[in-house]
Amino acid sequence: MLQQVDVTRRLATYVAGMRWEDAPPEVRHQAKRSFMNLFAVALAGCRTDPVEIALSSLQEFSGGKQATLIGRAERIDALSAAFLNAAAANVHDFCDTHVATVIHPTAPVAPALLALAELRKVSGSELLLAFILGNEVQARIALAISPKHYDKGWHITSTCGVFGAAAGAGKLLDLGEHQLVSAIGTASTQSSGLCECLGWPAKSVSVGNAARNGLWSALLAAKGFDGPAEPIAGRQGFYNALGDKPDLSRVTDGLGESWEIMATSYKPYPCGFVIHPVLDCVLDWRRAHPQAAVTRVVVRGNPLLAHRTDRPDVATGRESQVSVQHAVAAALVFGQAGVDQFTDACVNDPRVLALRRTVEVVRDESFSTIAANVEITAGGEVHRLAQTAARGSDVNPLSDKDLEQKLRTSAAALNPRHDIQPLIDAVWALDKSPDVAGLAALAVPRG
Amino acid sequence: MLQQVDVTRRLATYVAGMRWEDAPPEVRHQAKRSFMNLFAVALAGCRTDPVEIALSSLQEFSGGKQATLIGRAERIDALSAAFLNAAAANVHDFCDTHVATVIHPTAPVAPALLALAELRKVSGSELLLAFILGNEVQARIALAISPKHYDKGWHITSTCGVFGAAAGAGKLLDLGEHQLVSAIGTASTQSSGLCECLGWPAKSVSVGNAARNGLWSALLAAKGFDGPAEPIAGRQGFYNALGDKPDLSRVTDGLGESWEIMATSYKPYPCGFVIHPVLDCVLDWRRAHPQAAVTRVVVRGNPLLAHRTDRPDVATGRESQVSVQHAVAAALVFGQAGVDQFTDACVNDPRVLALRRTVEVVRDESFSTIAANVEITAGGEVHRLAQTAARGSDVNPLSDKDLEQKLRTSAAALNPRHDIQPLIDAVWALDKSPDVAGLAALAVPRG
Repeated sequence: MLQQVDVTRRLATYVAGMRWEDAPPEVRHQAKRSFMNLFAVALAGCRTDPVEIALSSLQEFSGGKQATLIGRAERIDALSAAFLNAAAANVHDFCDTHVATVIHPTAPVAPALLALAELRKVSGSELLLAFILGNEVQARIALAISPKHYDKGWHITSTCGVFGAAAGAGKLLDLGEHQLVSAIGTASTQSSGLCECLGWPAKSVSVGNAARNGLWSALLAAKGFDGPAEPIAGRQGFYNALGDKPDLSRVTDGLGESWEIMATSYKPYPCGFVIHPVLDCVLDWRRAHPQAAVTRVVVRGNPLLAHRTDRPDVATGRESQVSVQHAVAAALVFGQAGVDQFTDACVNDPRVLALRRTVEVVRDESFSTIAANVEITAGGEVHRLAQTAARGSDVNPLSDKDLEQKLRTSAAALNPRHDIQPLIDAVWALDKSPDVAGLAALAVPRG
Repeated sequence: MLQQVDVTRRLATYVAGMRWEDAPPEVRHQAKRSFMNLFAVALAGCRTDPVEIALSSLQEFSGGKQATLIGRAERIDALSAAFLNAAAANVHDFCDTHVATVIHPTAPVAPALLALAELRKVSGSELLLAFILGNEVQARIALAISPKHYDKGWHITSTCGVFGAAAGAGKLLDLGEHQLVSAIGTASTQSSGLCECLGWPAKSVSVGNAARNGLWSALLAAKGFDGPAEPIAGRQGFYNALGDKPDLSRVTDGLGESWEIMATSYKPYPCGFVIHPVLDCVLDWRRAHPQAAVTRVVVRGNPLLAHRTDRPDVATGRESQVSVQHAVAAALVFGQAGVDQFTDACVNDPRVLALRRTVEVVRDESFSTIAANVEITAGGEVHRLAQTAARGSDVNPLSDKDLEQKLRTSAAALNPRHDIQPLIDAVWALDKSPDVAGLAALAVPRG
């Protein structure tokens, strides 16, 4: 049992009090980068089975066509749109990561805010600020119980994401401190999500719920729906049930001064992060040698690389996301490592299958998890490649141009005729937009 | 970390295989009693603030008028109806109890099934069987982790109710074993509900979600939505995250032979159970002495009675549910102890206030928690009353007539012109009904 404290009230005071002027330029810009990445990953995920099935079910119960589905022509009620866009964003595990907690921070928050922005007028700076604050709230609630919470089997993106969505939506609704505590309380009793479901469609339900239920908690609070005074750290509250000896100082220390959104990393490839430095090497080499016939590949990296991804035989797209042999083979065959390279179809491509057998993995404790060496034998010559800091890692983040390109690739894969430039321009100009109701619609292919 | 077992598959096999013929007569009858009680408590709760606010919010997003709201003229989509009827049933803590787990078993399950029965044709025996099985599944999943799960702050009606709703709805949808495992998996990752929210509107959200999300899990499974093979006892599954050293034998031993629904008790009064034997005495006496002016009351009972309910000063209806002084005073003033006697208005009634001050509580370890003695002084005479086994307790269950009367009282309180007899008759004849689509509508006052 924890001591009664005022963790929730302090978060609520913070959210209610922060203004756009309080967010430093680099924080504002990072928020735009998160939206760019969100659109990229949601476009990549919006036609997957979990999204198709959930949409077809929700349509039977939904009223109105209030909100946009990223990448799709259908419209649906705002709660369902929050659910479906969050599920689409996270389905490939291609979305961004708050490294210290392993939260995918944008998937539960941004879709809730985008849906709300189609219900009432929201400016770009209001959207970005609410997103930044939701991000901060969920990250801080999660930091106090990391890594034990995740180790216990809780899917932290879902369990803590609901607080980010509630806090962000509450900010857009201009809730006062008391109402924000209520919103967080109603969110707390909807917090759920189990790691056992990772890799299954069921996972998408807890991520979608985080966005939907967080948004709904804020809407209920705006109507006077009430909850306990200390849902997070109260005697029978969130931390007591889902946390183990939380470090409450992680929630409140430096609140309003530091910004967890700056610890966000964006993935260049939809596969296990330890494979990323290997792919950097292989893709760079393939660009320089587009025709060379490869006969052997030796990959050297941190023991975790072999431990998690030394998997020469894989049967499904899902499994292929944690196979370094598959990733290397597919990257060599297609010259890229996007969503299409981690599908059931790609796994069974005979050219990929043949190349997988040529890849060896060597453990080397001198490597960090973001570094790797690759030796490629082609035409009798051995090419030696090295990556010391994977692209997308904290010390080598994706550039703005990289994120634009990630979005372009996703959009083109969904519909080659979709001109995505207006969305890219709109994201970079978000802080100047008086009304973002039309933002998500730019992510819907026309014609 | 738990060992991988086949708990979920065994529950699924059980649910898929059971037939109406397998349920003994007393089990079938108990299911009808649970529906009678459900309608009584949902009618009592259907106009409370949490239900009003949630309804007004859900109406903004809901499509179609597929399903009935108990006690209300509005209709709404089936998922929202499941949510709202479950919330209404549980809001006063007046619903039934599975004593060993403290689950309120009917609130999450029956509303999910009633909503589904308005989407597709369901016979009365199908409804009852699905209810019995949902009841069994949630009780068994809960028994394996009781009482530690509740002690940890989990609102067990919500966390385990979602499995009852999923299993029951899955049975009505005629899901096969594999699909039932999927439904339970999708339910597992939506399991939530914190005791910190008890006494607040936020509580109603987790109870409502249990019904809504359980139903949705079954509907998704019917469309091919998949989950892990062992969501309950898997390495990172439900028990690992929300349970502590579960006794798995409690889930599977005697499955198909014993019936947890027989351990259901129904409450005669919407207040703390330890007060019930006291109210039995006071109400019986008041019926015999309707005009006597009371000057003093001495209540003698198990130490828990004083420990939990010796509360001469109360300010709110919610608080009054755990005040023996208030319960006695209100019962003497009004000659009854229903929902109206535990409201803010009743708490502030000057007659009740005056009588509260005359009530004393004496601890006596020789009493069980279901027994009490009461001495009432009126007109200078002392009347000595005793109850050895409270009405509604396991050894003195409410009779069928008591349950009918409980329903009549609720219906009359909501709308005195509402003829509730057709609903009473329909519940007792449920096993003979070819189609129960119109059942819930009998609980809607006309005119």
